[in-house]
Amino acid sequence: MTLTESILSGDRLALARLLTQVENLTPDGRAALDSLFRHSGRAHLIGVTGAPGTGKSTLVNRLALHFRGQNKRVAIVAVDPSSPFTGGAVLGDRVRMKDLSGDSGVFIRSMASRGSLGGLARSTAGVVQVFDAAGYEIVLIETVGAGQGEVDIARLAHTTLVVEAPGLGDDIQAIKAGILEIADILVINKADRPGVENTEKALRSMLELAHPSQRVYMHHGRALEADAPADANSQVWIPPIQKTISTDGQGIPELAEQIFRHAEYLRSTGGWAARDRARLASELDMILQQTLLDQFRVRESETRYNEILQDVFKRNLSPWEAVALLTRADSSGPRDPDGRNGSGPAR
Amino acid sequence: MTLTESILSGDRLALARLLTQVENLTPDGRAALDSLFRHSGRAHLIGVTGAPGTGKSTLVNRLALHFRGQNKRVAIVAVDPSSPFTGGAVLGDRVRMKDLSGDSGVFIRSMASRGSLGGLARSTAGVVQVFDAAGYEIVLIETVGAGQGEVDIARLAHTTLVVEAPGLGDDIQAIKAGILEIADILVINKADRPGVENTEKALRSMLELAHPSQRVYMHHGRALEADAPADANSQVWIPPIQKTISTDGQGIPELAEQIFRHAEYLRSTGGWAARDRARLASELDMILQQTLLDQFRVRESETRYNEILQDVFKRNLSPWEAVALLTRADSSGPRDPDGRNGSGPAR
Repeated sequence: MTLTESILSGDRLALARLLTQVENLTPDGRAALDSLFRHSGRAHLIGVTGAPGTGKSTLVNRLALHFRGQNKRVAIVAVDPSSPFTGGAVLGDRVRMKDLSGDSGVFIRSMASRGSLGGLARSTAGVVQVFDAAGYEIVLIETVGAGQGEVDIARLAHTTLVVEAPGLGDDIQAIKAGILEIADILVINKADRPGVENTEKALRSMLELAHPSQRVYMHHGRALEADAPADANSQVWIPPIQKTISTDGQGIPELAEQIFRHAEYLRSTGGWAARDRARLASELDMILQQTLLDQFRVRESETRYNEILQDVFKRNLSPWEAVALLTRADSSGPRDPDGRNGSGPAR
Repeated sequence: MTLTESILSGDRLALARLLTQVENLTPDGRAALDSLFRHSGRAHLIGVTGAPGTGKSTLVNRLALHFRGQNKRVAIVAVDPSSPFTGGAVLGDRVRMKDLSGDSGVFIRSMASRGSLGGLARSTAGVVQVFDAAGYEIVLIETVGAGQGEVDIARLAHTTLVVEAPGLGDDIQAIKAGILEIADILVINKADRPGVENTEKALRSMLELAHPSQRVYMHHGRALEADAPADANSQVWIPPIQKTISTDGQGIPELAEQIFRHAEYLRSTGGWAARDRARLASELDMILQQTLLDQFRVRESETRYNEILQDVFKRNLSPWEAVALLTRADSSGPRDPDGRNGSGPAR
């Protein structure tokens, strides 16, 4: 039985091994991804983002339990930007899930970024595809941080939940303004806390200011496509605001119902496929960018690269000038009919 | 007088115009950066990061006032990941600085990410270089978010401040673990709040677990260099913990003193130059990556790219397979002695 077959047959141990390979972007992991990819495209991808202190982890936990009650297989991908330097995932993520442990219908994976955020985004995309192909019907992608990179990871899910909580201070208010625009559903968690009315009022007025009637996907600087046709009869999704108390589960069934409604909306308007395509196009570009850099490094002599870098250190060359020097031969290379690059450096 | 000369002579209006060009990465902005670059390398770059709700903005404000009292010219670059979608900066950033307005020795710039975090990192690097070349002795780089991308932007400053505050909830505790490793100085702001002793105790025990004796810069997967020589006599910098109440300025002179001490430490150990070089190498690579992608797009026919993308949408090709197809001709291009790429697509 091949690794791909083992995954498709539901072998958890094989799955765990493959996830590690995919996370580390090994050649074996990549090969398995290639063959699993055609089996993906069935899962409902749900992004959950929001500032620290909003109780996202507990909320995700509760949602997973709820979906398990509907007998759906659930994967949780916890993207954890807090441990980029140690390589390990936060202990809390591992222990918090005790209600779910021992349930073979649930698989939890913490992703720590190792080095670059780009690497994290690429490996998260791969891990999500593996869960999708392995038959997990719900994939919850939780991003612990509140920064742009985490938002980028969460925003291309089918359904994006933005989690807020009452009384987290002024900075949070500022963050809302931007993050609101990616929300399909707004969650006010910790709704038993004082100040919940104010939070709801603030969110509602921001929604009224913002409410983008449709989301347009940009790709290579052009609009790729929109969720819904821009005609007068088109349905428009206004993000609902759902209050929850994830510590005791209040509001969770209602939230799950909103998530289900959103999926229905996307399917009826073509938005589901549009989001799939936007995600895949963005993934292609991420991989393309890294591959071009890798190929450049193979081609370019280490010595020359380092000489130019030294000139930047001495401030004889600006970084832009250095890149122009380094890539001059490259740009004309594949197009050069007789293979001679007059402007290129001698190698 | 050229734009470069205007900047060097202290023309604030010219500076404001150039910053906009640099932020938008226009050709004119780039040309000015190239000529200004040789004048940079004198400023002390201070990164300030931490979770939302810690009062970073007020702290940065207070620090700027303090440095102004020492007659230093101060620039503030507020990197704001919260408005990636609107393109505007948060109002709060603009109004909070009323104590500093009208002071010609201070320049405040809010950066909003437009689209990608990579773009934000590149334009932030450019803006910092312009301030440096224009003679601002202190450049405070404040990142509003708490995510990996913002950390990446802050970490390559000469001195990185990580700001905490008492009682911000459990998620914050988790975030600390990773972010701690980039801190040169730990600040407990809002130190008049209950729970400050616990925060300090927690930070101290984390420091004891972590305290990396020296920071090693990785580049292309190898260690570039370390802050300090790894011999027995080498000095080691243990991040101090400084309590502040930025609303009334308590602890600010002490914090400024710690920042000064850290600069002295870096200069005496060679760490100053090491951090400069690591920052420039990382900037070079960011620009290189984008340039390679741009060049690829110019070379590659739109039709072929879109055909392959459609095959990914249909799940006939995985994104990795698609990239392999797209870059096959490219990789052999510049090395191909007679310019023919047998494996390449007909164009």
